[in-house]
Amino acid sequence: MYSLRRTTIRVLSPGGRCTISTAPRVIFSGIQPTGTPHLGNFAGAIRQWLNLQHDPDEKCRRFFSVVDLHAITSPQHGQQLRQRKRETLAALLATGLDPSKSALFYQSSVPAHTELMWILSCIASTGYLSRMTQWKSKLGLSPDTTLQDGGVKASLKLGLFSYPVLQAADILVHRATHVPVGDDQRQHLEFARECVTNFNHAYGPHLRSPQTITSSSRRIMSLQQPTKKMSKSDVDSKSHILITDTPEEIRRKVMAALTDSVNSVSYDPEARPGVSNLLDILSIFDSSGRDPAQLAEDLLNRSLMDLKQLVADAVITGLQGIRERFIDFLSADEGRYIDWVEAEGARKARENAEETMAIVRQAIGL
Amino acid sequence: MYSLRRTTIRVLSPGGRCTISTAPRVIFSGIQPTGTPHLGNFAGAIRQWLNLQHDPDEKCRRFFSVVDLHAITSPQHGQQLRQRKRETLAALLATGLDPSKSALFYQSSVPAHTELMWILSCIASTGYLSRMTQWKSKLGLSPDTTLQDGGVKASLKLGLFSYPVLQAADILVHRATHVPVGDDQRQHLEFARECVTNFNHAYGPHLRSPQTITSSSRRIMSLQQPTKKMSKSDVDSKSHILITDTPEEIRRKVMAALTDSVNSVSYDPEARPGVSNLLDILSIFDSSGRDPAQLAEDLLNRSLMDLKQLVADAVITGLQGIRERFIDFLSADEGRYIDWVEAEGARKARENAEETMAIVRQAIGL
Repeated sequence: MYSLRRTTIRVLSPGGRCTISTAPRVIFSGIQPTGTPHLGNFAGAIRQWLNLQHDPDEKCRRFFSVVDLHAITSPQHGQQLRQRKRETLAALLATGLDPSKSALFYQSSVPAHTELMWILSCIASTGYLSRMTQWKSKLGLSPDTTLQDGGVKASLKLGLFSYPVLQAADILVHRATHVPVGDDQRQHLEFARECVTNFNHAYGPHLRSPQTITSSSRRIMSLQQPTKKMSKSDVDSKSHILITDTPEEIRRKVMAALTDSVNSVSYDPEARPGVSNLLDILSIFDSSGRDPAQLAEDLLNRSLMDLKQLVADAVITGLQGIRERFIDFLSADEGRYIDWVEAEGARKARENAEETMAIVRQAIGL
Repeated sequence: MYSLRRTTIRVLSPGGRCTISTAPRVIFSGIQPTGTPHLGNFAGAIRQWLNLQHDPDEKCRRFFSVVDLHAITSPQHGQQLRQRKRETLAALLATGLDPSKSALFYQSSVPAHTELMWILSCIASTGYLSRMTQWKSKLGLSPDTTLQDGGVKASLKLGLFSYPVLQAADILVHRATHVPVGDDQRQHLEFARECVTNFNHAYGPHLRSPQTITSSSRRIMSLQQPTKKMSKSDVDSKSHILITDTPEEIRRKVMAALTDSVNSVSYDPEARPGVSNLLDILSIFDSSGRDPAQLAEDLLNRSLMDLKQLVADAVITGLQGIRERFIDFLSADEGRYIDWVEAEGARKARENAEETMAIVRQAIGL
């Protein structure tokens, strides 16, 4: 009844207006190597990536990267990071990403990412970077924190501060035309376009300004605290559904989801965050493509228990097979298929990035 | 009479004490691609590199890099930078650096430099970097400038701020044991050792802490303003001697050097900067290895005119052949020999850097 529906994709041009591009597309996007993605990652990024595989443009090239170089801006344990990178790739394959259509690779397999990052550093303003919010939120600081504040000097590493520059390099080195991102990454895309402007001003029109693709869906929230986004690092495992959870685990978590005391269905993210979050989840998997508000109308006379049963059924059906394929990919032949997929994806990504770097090096005189 | 004398080399351990190392040495040093080096570059860096080629340790490996990635922290014109890189390499070869003993290469030919730079960024404190002096002096700011000061925000690019991290990566990626540097680079070497400490603390004892090699000679100063260091960017061409200047140019510049009104020779850098600078230059080329003070004693009763003649003779003899070899390398077979030397040097440097990166990637989980 409920299957994966195509998400509506809005393409935002730099000015924020919707455009229809006719040039051959190059898609780039990245995912953190957290191991097994949760439902929020699935709804936000992976589902878009899957839909983008159906792009009728035969020449469209897709690059999806497990961004291990970004991951090390937080302290990592070597063996664990290596394991999580493989699990993330296995999960992407298990959801249906097709290595013949999309290059899947580890960011660190393509040296041009850090090479272009350095080049962009030389034109990136520290003032602009100091105003960005991610490093402040990652350090638990207020958005008006400055670099000179006492706590910052002690704790801010250069890597976290420079994060948006590496992200810009990720995108620009692949000459991406379209970048699917979450709302929280819009500021970074704006910065990437600023890098293009600065670079092209200094060295000629060689880099391409990317457009943002944002999903029409709302962000999936924690099942236990529906005003907080769903996160794997939440210690309460009932707060998030992993895409590799068993049907029993999924049903248990959905049935235990925090809602409210009104025993009917309506869509109002402000007043009824828990119920609305369940409707958002339901809409991800609705085969007839209904949005959460439409679903709420269709389910007007149903109880919250009914809604939860429908959501559990939809998620279980929608994620069916992912868990088994995930385990297969990791265990079969000691995971050699994953390594092969990565090696192939990295080769394609290196080739693509090298085309850009040849132009960039020529322009700069390297 | 005057030929290139071996400079005395002091090896400073991290604590500042002199040590004699018995491990096989790995030497790394870099030079900016300014085209043709001046006498100050020659006395400070190149002369040390030449001497280090005589190291009796058969296993000693030497890596000398034309640091084009550092150069782009200032705006560059592509074609000019490419030309200057070749000229710099031609000049190094012309002075006698032997590609069979030393790997000579462009920094941008070895991607591991920027790759390790990113990794070190993730453990490098912005507080430490903000206290360093080079970015302030390059922007013409006072040493107590902070990142929050108005002028800084507008003008400081991330590349200039991160410069010491790339420099640390240059050294550490080659597992250098010894780094010949000028006095102005000591702070950066200290920072590189801090990077080693931080990295090894986080990921295990994989990076090697380098020792500083400083020359016993004083810095060569401008011939026209002997309290300022010699610089190629000085608009007054009489202020500096290029190692490719003709004998006539050298003599003309030395004879026109600013000295003082005391028509006798003595060595006193504070009171007589011009005369002392000439004695410093003379001592570089003194075959019997006399230091400037000894030379002053031996020349006690000579006039300043006599001193200038001796200096001009010494420099002309000392640099003899460099100009011709420089022109030959650049013109013969359209400079293909230079390109071959660079390709060979880059291959060796990549091999050496890859050994380190394999260890580093394994430790971090990349």
